[in-house]
Order: sequence, then C-alpha cells, then structure tokens
Amino acid sequence: MALIVQKYGGSSVADVEKIKNVARRVVESAGGNQLVVVVSAMGKATDGLVNLATRISNSPDPREMDMLLATGEQITIALLAMALHGLGFKARSFTGPQVGMRTDTAHTKARITRINAERARAALEAGEIVVVAGFQGLSEVDEITTLGRGGSDLTAVALAAALKADVCEIYTDVDGVYTADPNIVPDARKLPRIAYDEMLEMASLGAKVLQARSVEFAKKYGVPVHVRSTFKPVPGTLVTREERDMEEVVVTGVTHDWSQAKISILRVPDRPGIAAQVFGAIAETNIVVDMIVQNISRDGYTDMSFTLPRSDYGRAVGALQDIGRKVGAQGVVHDERVAKVSIVGVGMRSHSGVASQMFAALAREGINIQMISTSEIAVSCVIEDKYAELAVRALHDTFALGREREATV
Amino acid sequence: MALIVQKYGGSSVADVEKIKNVARRVVESAGGNQLVVVVSAMGKATDGLVNLATRISNSPDPREMDMLLATGEQITIALLAMALHGLGFKARSFTGPQVGMRTDTAHTKARITRINAERARAALEAGEIVVVAGFQGLSEVDEITTLGRGGSDLTAVALAAALKADVCEIYTDVDGVYTADPNIVPDARKLPRIAYDEMLEMASLGAKVLQARSVEFAKKYGVPVHVRSTFKPVPGTLVTREERDMEEVVVTGVTHDWSQAKISILRVPDRPGIAAQVFGAIAETNIVVDMIVQNISRDGYTDMSFTLPRSDYGRAVGALQDIGRKVGAQGVVHDERVAKVSIVGVGMRSHSGVASQMFAALAREGINIQMISTSEIAVSCVIEDKYAELAVRALHDTFALGREREATV
Repeated sequence: MALIVQKYGGSSVADVEKIKNVARRVVESAGGNQLVVVVSAMGKATDGLVNLATRISNSPDPREMDMLLATGEQITIALLAMALHGLGFKARSFTGPQVGMRTDTAHTKARITRINAERARAALEAGEIVVVAGFQGLSEVDEITTLGRGGSDLTAVALAAALKADVCEIYTDVDGVYTADPNIVPDARKLPRIAYDEMLEMASLGAKVLQARSVEFAKKYGVPVHVRSTFKPVPGTLVTREERDMEEVVVTGVTHDWSQAKISILRVPDRPGIAAQVFGAIAETNIVVDMIVQNISRDGYTDMSFTLPRSDYGRAVGALQDIGRKVGAQGVVHDERVAKVSIVGVGMRSHSGVASQMFAALAREGINIQMISTSEIAVSCVIEDKYAELAVRALHDTFALGREREATV
Repeated sequence: MALIVQKYGGSSVADVEKIKNVARRVVESAGGNQLVVVVSAMGKATDGLVNLATRISNSPDPREMDMLLATGEQITIALLAMALHGLGFKARSFTGPQVGMRTDTAHTKARITRINAERARAALEAGEIVVVAGFQGLSEVDEITTLGRGGSDLTAVALAAALKADVCEIYTDVDGVYTADPNIVPDARKLPRIAYDEMLEMASLGAKVLQARSVEFAKKYGVPVHVRSTFKPVPGTLVTREERDMEEVVVTGVTHDWSQAKISILRVPDRPGIAAQVFGAIAETNIVVDMIVQNISRDGYTDMSFTLPRSDYGRAVGALQDIGRKVGAQGVVHDERVAKVSIVGVGMRSHSGVASQMFAALAREGINIQMISTSEIAVSCVIEDKYAELAVRALHDTFALGREREATV
C-alpha cells in the first residue's frame, strides 16, 4: 500500500463538472493506496475575490486579504469531498489550518515552518481520502495565512514530506516537463525524469510547470514529484534526485523568459561602494533583480546592466533616476524588448565547452548576445526579444534534444 | 464607554457598496465605544454555495456542507474589515472558530456550548473594531460547524452575553417590532419595548424579525436586544426583561402564520398509548408538530388534529397512512388552506377573559375557529387561510393596538 499525495490546480477544478472529473481521477488511483488530495481554488475564483477586495481598498490589509482568499480553496475541498462521497468513497476535507500547516506571519507570502499532520494521519488510518486546501496555513499567532504564488504545489510537496509519502503527483494541464516549450519547438520531447537541480533552474529560468519554491522543498526532503496531466492518463515527468546516468546528457532542456526588462546605468564612476549604493536603492523598493553585468572600466568609469521583472520596471527606473544623479552617472537607459534564453543540465558539471557551443549556435543565427550569466548547471543569454523563438529552436537542435535523438539513442 | 455588539444580515451586506455603507454606519457608532460587528454572508452568497453543493450531491454530507457554507461569512468579514480600514479605523476580522464560538457536533444546526472570547477581548482592548463571522463555530472535535437558520442573530446575542455587552443591536430591513404586520394592518404601531417572553411567542407564532433561538438566549443571559433599521437612523424596538408597566397592556401584538398545514386522523380508538404511537411515528420522521387537538371521545373513538410546517406535509401524510392503519383509524384527512392567528402579551397573566374576547372578535367577522391553543401569554386560533388578514385586523382593533390608541392613552 502506497501513500500518494496528489495536487490539482485551479483549471482542473474550475467548475462542478471538472470537480466531478477530478473525483473520478482520484478514485482511479485509490485501489489499496492511501490518498491525500490537495486542491486550489476553482478557476477564476481567486481573481473574483481579489476583484472584490480592490473595489473596497487600493491597498487591502494583507491579513484580511488572506482571510478573504483562503475561502477559495475551502469551497473546492468541500465540493470535492462531496463528489468523492457520491462515488461511494470515504473522504474528509481539511483547511490549511486544520491540516496543521503552520507558517510564519508574512501574510500573502507566508513560509511553512512546520506541519502537525496528526489529523491527516488519523483520517488516512480511518480509510478516508484526505482532501486538503492548498495555498493556506495558520501562523504562529493563529492567523490564517496564504503561501503566495504556486502555494498549492508547495502545500502538496510539504505534506508529502511530512507524511513520508511515496510520491507527490502534481496534476496540471500539460503532461510533463519538456526539453523546450512545445509551442515553439515542435519536436520538443517530454522528459521521463529530471533532477531537482535541473527543475529548479528551469523553473527559475522561465519554465512554468512547477514553482521553484516547491522544487526546493522537494529537493530538501527528497520527495519524488511526478508532474502529469489531469486529462490524459499517461506517465508524466518524475522530478527526482540526480542519478548517475543523468550526467551523460549534457543539456536537458532549453527555456525562455519574456517577462524581463533590462536597465543600464551609463558611465558610473568605478570606485568601491557604487554597486552597493545602486542595488541597495533597488532593494529598498522590494524589486528582485535577476542578472547583473558590469563591464570593464574605461577611464575610471563603467556601465552596469541588470534585468528585472518587467512588471517592476517603472518603479525601478524611478528609483534609479535619483541614485544615478547621486553617484554621478551619465544616464539610465532601459529596454523592454529583451528575452532570456537558457540551457540547463546537470551534465554541464562534468562537461566543458557547453557555453561556447551555445554562443556559437546563437552566432550562427546572427543573434547578438547582450548579457550572459552562468551557474553550475545552466547558461543564460539575454538577447533581443524578437529572436527568442529562433534562439530556442537553434539551441534545441544544437544540443540534439528533439524526438529524433530519442529514437536514435 | 459602552461595549456594543451589532449584527448586520445578508441583505445589509449584499454587495461592495452596501458593505461600505455598513462600514460607515459602524463608525458612526464608534465614538468612544467598543464595537463588535457580526455579519452574515453577502446577499445570495449562501444560496449560491448551496446550489453548487446540490449540483454535486442530492444529500451532501453535513460536515462538508458546513465547511462550504462557512466561507460565505468569511468573505464578508474580510471585506468589511478592509472597508473599516479605508475609513481610518482599526479593525480585525474573526471567523467563528477564531472568535472562540464552540458548539456541539450537530452539523448544519449546531448549538453553542461555550465561548472563549479572549481574542475578541484582546482586540477590543487594543482599540480594534472586532468583525465576526456569524452563523459558524467550531465543534468539540475541532470541526467547522454552522448554527442553522437565524444563526447570525444567535452569534451576536451569544457574543454580547459572553462579553457582557451593554446592548446587542440587530440591524435589519425593518425598523423594529410592530403590533402586527404593517403590510396587513396599516395602522400597526412600532413597539418601543417588548418583553423577552412576548418576543419569543411572537417569533414562534410567525413574526420574522428575530429567530426564537436568539431571543431565548438573550432572555437566559439578560442581553438587551435592540432591533433596528440598517437604513434609517431611528430607534427601533428594545427587547428586554419584563417591567411592571408592561402588564398594564393586555395584548402587545397580533401575529399570523401562513406556513402551516393541518392533518386530522379520524375515528382513532380512544385508548391509552394511541397518541404516543401516532406522534412517535411523526417524531421519527424529524417533523416538529405545532398545535395538537384531541376531541372528546364518542363511542370509544376520537379525532386527532395537529398542525405542522407546510414543507413537511407530504412526508407526514406518508408516515400517517401507515400508522393510521396500524391503530385502526378510519382515515387521515389534511388541509393546507389554514392560517394561524395569535395574540401575545405578558399582561394576559393578570387579566382574564382575553381568549373569549378574541373568539368573540373572530365570531363577529363570521370566521370559524378550527383549533385553539393557549399559553400563559398567548392565544392562537387556526382558521381558514383566506380569513387571515381580516382576522388580524379585527384583533388589532379589538385590543386597540393601533396608532389612535397610542394618541389617546
């Protein structure tokens, strides 16, 4: 008998019929297994609640926002439990607070601190399917909290860790993790397995299938995560610890990210403390900067460039006009027409020359590289956004990630 | 500094604009007072949730139904707290479980067992307006429960008792308790005060302004309840302990109830145990019987009549066909075209002849009385339903309850 945690997102439970479908999908997995099912709010329910709040206040209190938003998942769990009863199965729903999901007090983006899973365990022992509201918890001071974007994935992975589940299945509208976005690369291939670190990099670099936070958690507690389709009963992608044979593949996937913008500060005096001043000013606005590049100094001056989420762009430019003047920079220029393309693979650790292969592939297509950053298992380039699809296809070919390769290996 | 508990029903918080209005109404009462505000779900929100549930299951699990329905009030409290913040006031919302409303485990109709009001008290001490989700609580086994019909009134009264509030204000779409339904009796008069027992009888006998359960609770703990209008800033009706001068008025109000039906079992053998058998069978179907009349025995046989909620009528007739045969009755006849009219007043205790005055008034109008029942402070008659308005007006006149009387006394 296995213990399986399943998670179904908002689009999988968007209406009553879909909730009934999920119930059928759940009971198909039931045969002799213990099941925990984590669900999100129904489809656009959360948007509807946010809309109510913004009609009342421009800056709703985060505590009250959590109080409001937590109702979304609570509705889904009750309905799913009823649907499971309708199929003749014992089931019991639990809110985040009820399932012992304890968090810190950072409302709207709380972090899980511990899980008291006794009630869930008791229900499982009693032969019940445990239905859990994702995305929510209870703070140390007994306030309802929410976990922020992708919170339901995190709930599922954290519960799987606490319950020592055999696997955490994330059901979604795609059927797994691909070597690249199939909308851009027609012969993109579904990966049967991917290492936590690769998944982490891919999530951070633009792949939307799993939130980076959940993958971090899964890695930390060694929870195998199976990303699969709500609608197609086929195996998806298993996110798991690194295995020896994974290193034989140098590049596992290609990602792209259109959500960034680039800002450059021109002719900054090149002396100690300037970077700290500039990025200190940005940090104060709570904007998270991604890539940073500083060119070599000429005549005691240098140029600094960085990328950031496009949505934070306006605020960042405002903050930088001030700091630019203070540090005596010549000016601030910005560019929204950028994209980031990246290659990811744990095999890079033991292979050299991967980055130069990437640069050569882009050069062959006449694509100019504006910024470069590297990690142990990924290389990213910022390029002009109109070349993004071309770049992804070129890299996918260069590293032989397509279906043909699968057939010939 | 007074401590005031206010309760606003679903129609008062039906949309965002109305919630903002309630917020303004609340802060008008704030001047130096401590405030607890109990709210219901927004307008038709509860109906919407019930509809979702019935689309999933014909007989949804009561525990899951409570899980579902409790979200309705939780949405309102978050929005109202945000609206109060918008007006510059400190406010904090609490679900039923958070405000320490403990109940038994009778899902969908739980009874309050105790209240741990520490969190509410702490928030009041901190100068916050306490916003509470009505209708809901937490059972002894930490499950979310709901209190059934009129539950938000009960939440307000119970919190007022626990916090020893100076008054519990019930805001509603009528501006108080009237001597009769003003839609039927144009010169019906708003009562400035009414005794708990009178209010109890009137609620049980058809007046819809307050649920009998809340009045019972208020009486038990001596909570003064002020029934008043959400929309008009005028004093309403104070429901309070009986005072000496109340006895000078013999009849305080006239009520009517169109929601009942009458069933008669004909020619039942008149021997001990038969009534127990008949009403035992009815009780097993969970139907609450109201008035019961048994005629005197003729030839060892008797007729039994009783009234019950019209909605339970079909089920009751079914149950009675069986038991009628078993006890050897001649047959079961039923009548939905009945109404109950009642007069209520604590003054009846010390005045005689009130019932005969009532019967005479009905006789003058040519209205036949089908059943009679009396309590210490009320007399009720079941009549043909088409005479109900006429009967109410006649009784209102007979006992001089109209505005003219107010002017001449």
